[in-house]
Amino acid sequence: MSKIVIALGGNALGNTPAEQLELVRQTAKPIVDLIEAGNQVVIAHGNGPQVGMINLGMSTAAEAGAIKSDMPFPECGAMSQGYIGYHLQNSIGNELAARGIQKDVVTVVTQVLVDENDPAFQKPSKPIGAFYDKETADRIAAEKGYTMVEDAGRGYRQVVPSPKPVDVVEKNVVDRLVDSGCVVITVGGGGIPVIRKEGRLAGTPAVIDKDFASAKLAELIRADKLVVLTAVDRVAIHWGKPEQQSLAQMSITEAERYCGEGHFAPGSMLPKVQAAISFARSGGDAIIASLENAAAALRGESGTRIYRD
Amino acid sequence: MSKIVIALGGNALGNTPAEQLELVRQTAKPIVDLIEAGNQVVIAHGNGPQVGMINLGMSTAAEAGAIKSDMPFPECGAMSQGYIGYHLQNSIGNELAARGIQKDVVTVVTQVLVDENDPAFQKPSKPIGAFYDKETADRIAAEKGYTMVEDAGRGYRQVVPSPKPVDVVEKNVVDRLVDSGCVVITVGGGGIPVIRKEGRLAGTPAVIDKDFASAKLAELIRADKLVVLTAVDRVAIHWGKPEQQSLAQMSITEAERYCGEGHFAPGSMLPKVQAAISFARSGGDAIIASLENAAAALRGESGTRIYRD
Repeated sequence: MSKIVIALGGNALGNTPAEQLELVRQTAKPIVDLIEAGNQVVIAHGNGPQVGMINLGMSTAAEAGAIKSDMPFPECGAMSQGYIGYHLQNSIGNELAARGIQKDVVTVVTQVLVDENDPAFQKPSKPIGAFYDKETADRIAAEKGYTMVEDAGRGYRQVVPSPKPVDVVEKNVVDRLVDSGCVVITVGGGGIPVIRKEGRLAGTPAVIDKDFASAKLAELIRADKLVVLTAVDRVAIHWGKPEQQSLAQMSITEAERYCGEGHFAPGSMLPKVQAAISFARSGGDAIIASLENAAAALRGESGTRIYRD
Repeated sequence: MSKIVIALGGNALGNTPAEQLELVRQTAKPIVDLIEAGNQVVIAHGNGPQVGMINLGMSTAAEAGAIKSDMPFPECGAMSQGYIGYHLQNSIGNELAARGIQKDVVTVVTQVLVDENDPAFQKPSKPIGAFYDKETADRIAAEKGYTMVEDAGRGYRQVVPSPKPVDVVEKNVVDRLVDSGCVVITVGGGGIPVIRKEGRLAGTPAVIDKDFASAKLAELIRADKLVVLTAVDRVAIHWGKPEQQSLAQMSITEAERYCGEGHFAPGSMLPKVQAAISFARSGGDAIIASLENAAAALRGESGTRIYRD
């Protein structure tokens, strides 16, 4: 029996609650296949479109005076964990029940520690929420201390830093639940980012890459495998060119060379490969695969395996 | 060592995220007093103002076209569990750490089963979200199938049913976590209401009273005590009259008579007394007390104890 952390993309979850529930119902099936095959499964997931929608919705309503205050970004992340986690635990629970498998499924609201000296805090780079005109953006920046930048000619948006995960605050709980046979949903959206300030953990507006958070969690709970899901069956080099080549495996050294040569798109395949490298370096088995072929990938018949040289 | 379920009111959590975080930090202290005294503590909490704000925020933004869809009510409840749970687990965790107590704190996203044949579904009574004029209310009713009613001359609002909790889907997980020494936050807002439909659990727009859900959870995990927190130190009969009398204890028979005589305000003290009766009937020790005097109430020096005759 293997302990597996699966990293599910937020973009695969649709743009509305109805879309998400339908997609998650489909997603539950290959996940339950892995559980039925005897694996201990932990699900980590992204939240890009979802936390964007929540942040935008609450700030629009606050600007319109419909509600008293907008929602700070860490709290939006916590809300997205409840929202996505509920759909996942409900759908996986239903799929398990339909197959007659007795297993508890649980979403753990999860804080992820970041270092306030992480250089990412010096250059916020991740755009979130609504687009504003310059005047409104300047007012918001002055009122709330947000960093606002011009985004591709579409207007001004808040940008937040994207620091590296240092620790998963609830790791022991996750570990205990997995060991007791639960299917656990955790580090949603990369986790609620917290920094340590005078001995206390305090939420901070940031986005932790969900693949990095998944790799950190997998390392902390000593998972056997990390499966980073993506839209394609295998990682490819020379993507979109005539010499495009899909890879069944790559060593850490090869993977790092490919990263350096710019084979992987930043914000897309690059963080997945980097997360896989980080987990492989800690001694685990890292696989990048499609959801449909996740089971095959675990048998070595699909996906790209990243291994320690 | 006693296993204690504490039911915390949503109204005690403030109206904005900043207010909530500050209030929750204060709330964490008497809760950690109970933990430090050696009790196993489970925290259930309300979400009235919070889920109202989330529902209103998301529907305002959807009506304005800022986001694609509004958020169904069960999903709003799930979001509120993430939002409030994060503040509680963060603050309690910080307070424990400040006192040098090693203990994990975890929020479990929690579904609560209700019966689709519960008579409450025939007469939705709980107003939620925004006020609309008649025309908009009629359009929303037609578009979304909501029940809209005129609310005290202030406009039209959606009303949802308030069915009784039948089961807590994640009860085994909560129980296991408590037994392993965790402080658990669960059944937020009375839980995400789900009905069983062709063997599957499906979210349904409803509000489960958080005191009833807390009593049901306490019964299911065989807690020793249920502490229902309120703004006053003791339950009183003849409230606000010259003959007002605070009660240190009442038997189930007495409590039921007082309920029948209309001593307790519906939607306020009445559900707390009813929840306490229900837990006392199952064999547990039920106490209604203020947060400040919760520890004293557990020693029998404050609060109102409801006991089996």
